[in-house]
Amino acid sequence: MSALTEMLRSHPQKPTTHFDAIARCIEACFECEQICVTCADACLAEEQVGMLRECIRLNLDCADLCGATGRLISRQARPEPALWRATLEACAQACRSCAEECAKHQDRHEHCRICKESCERCERACRDALQQMPSGGAESRH
Amino acid sequence: MSALTEMLRSHPQKPTTHFDAIARCIEACFECEQICVTCADACLAEEQVGMLRECIRLNLDCADLCGATGRLISRQARPEPALWRATLEACAQACRSCAEECAKHQDRHEHCRICKESCERCERACRDALQQMPSGGAESRH
Amino acid sequence: MSALTEMLRSHPQKPTTHFDAIARCIEACFECEQICVTCADACLAEEQVGMLRECIRLNLDCADLCGATGRLISRQARPEPALWRATLEACAQACRSCAEECAKHQDRHEHCRICKESCERCERACRDALQQMPSGGAESRH
Amino acid sequence: MSALTEMLRSHPQKPTTHFDAIARCIEACFECEQICVTCADACLAEEQVGMLRECIRLNLDCADLCGATGRLISRQARPEPALWRATLEACAQACRSCAEECAKHQDRHEHCRICKESCERCERACRDALQQMPSGGAESRH
Repeated sequence: MSALTEMLRSHPQKPTTHFDAIARCIEACFECEQICVTCADACLAEEQVGMLRECIRLNLDCADLCGATGRLISRQARPEPALWRATLEACAQACRSCAEECAKHQDRHEHCRICKESCERCERACRDALQQMPSGGAESRH
Repeated sequence: MSALTEMLRSHPQKPTTHFDAIARCIEACFECEQICVTCADACLAEEQVGMLRECIRLNLDCADLCGATGRLISRQARPEPALWRATLEACAQACRSCAEECAKHQDRHEHCRICKESCERCERACRDALQQMPSGGAESRH
Repeated sequence: MSALTEMLRSHPQKPTTHFDAIARCIEACFECEQICVTCADACLAEEQVGMLRECIRLNLDCADLCGATGRLISRQARPEPALWRATLEACAQACRSCAEECAKHQDRHEHCRICKESCERCERACRDALQQMPSGGAESRH
Repeated sequence: MSALTEMLRSHPQKPTTHFDAIARCIEACFECEQICVTCADACLAEEQVGMLRECIRLNLDCADLCGATGRLISRQARPEPALWRATLEACAQACRSCAEECAKHQDRHEHCRICKESCERCERACRDALQQMPSGGAESRH
């Protein structure tokens, strides 16, 4: 059991119905943030940096969204369903945009291939977490 | 002219059609992040912190979303319309959730009143930026 | 009075002896974060991006340090003196490194000149806040 | 080999002499950020939240410093030694402060024990990375 999973299990108000999907999503978000930050820096170090401008931008966008989303869903005590949905949607979109751009460069740059795969994992994890959110949750909270 | 506006004007690929809405939105996001971080800390310092748990959580959620959104829309060279829309929607929702919770405490706590107003300004700024985004932009980019 | 100053004044445990230096430092940190994020993106849009790699990296480093520092010193209820000192030192150093790199490009790129000036303001604000911290604070807290 | 290690190895300008210490430090920083964010939220959910105010504050400080530090040292192409040192020092201090506070609550709250251990690992990883930085590096770079 990772330190993160152990941590989430010790939370006094952890979610009961979709704990695993959320735990995976948090791990995927923080991993993707870190990998996107590194991919941006690796792109900056490539000789043909001029062809990687858009990749660097989307790396940075994706890193910021993943970081904010990972933090938000780590605060699991009383999730605000409408906010979780909008945030997970935005994060999935950031991962999608970044993965598509990285895919264009993956044959030439190994770091873009690794980053694309991390973005795809994170997009899937966000969509899984979205699907497992209790339906009608927005109402049931109040 | 603020340093931020001057900075945005010096960008070689700044948006031409909705520059003012974006500049206002960036300023509102960074202001709201900062004010939400402070409101969370002020709530933590209140004697009746037990009644402010949900306010602190939404302060932190809103700060993280505003920070990520402010950074994303500061990268204005080649905005990715679907990503901008999803992110501005998520930020507007975070501001809405936080403003509603702060409103419950504003009579007792001045910092919650100030935070509520900042969140409302930021939500409006996000919605204005959303409205002024070129329609069909998601397609026109490719 | 700005929304931020009003907010800080409403905090139940605000510092009494060096309030103005801290308020200025918070504002400088968030401004510098935003301006560094924009300078990185503007550099990425320049034709000669290859000459600006180091500038982009230091912009991103400085943005991250300024963001974390601005948040830390916004939590002013019970500052941890050793932590505040180390953080303000790191932020001042990030601003120094970024300003020096931006200075090399300021004749060619207006955004680098504006960013250099913002970094210099933020470095000064950090050093002022450091100087006005109560001496021996690390001990007096316990 | 983790995705992160694989990513770092694909970077065209990775450090040769202290690669492992840096890779471990990046992983420790992102893990600690995530765990501190969760500990803050778990503390907020405890009945006796009033006794955990300082713990929540230091959790948030530590999360912000770890996040910024993890990002900075992920940009490994051409590290700025003075900046890396100051940042790693600040992060180690944040981990120290948070670990000491969490230790006071670890008998009562499992999440504080887990968080304390994560902070201690991250502090050690920062100090290891500091020790393995090339001495005199600040000068040799120019």
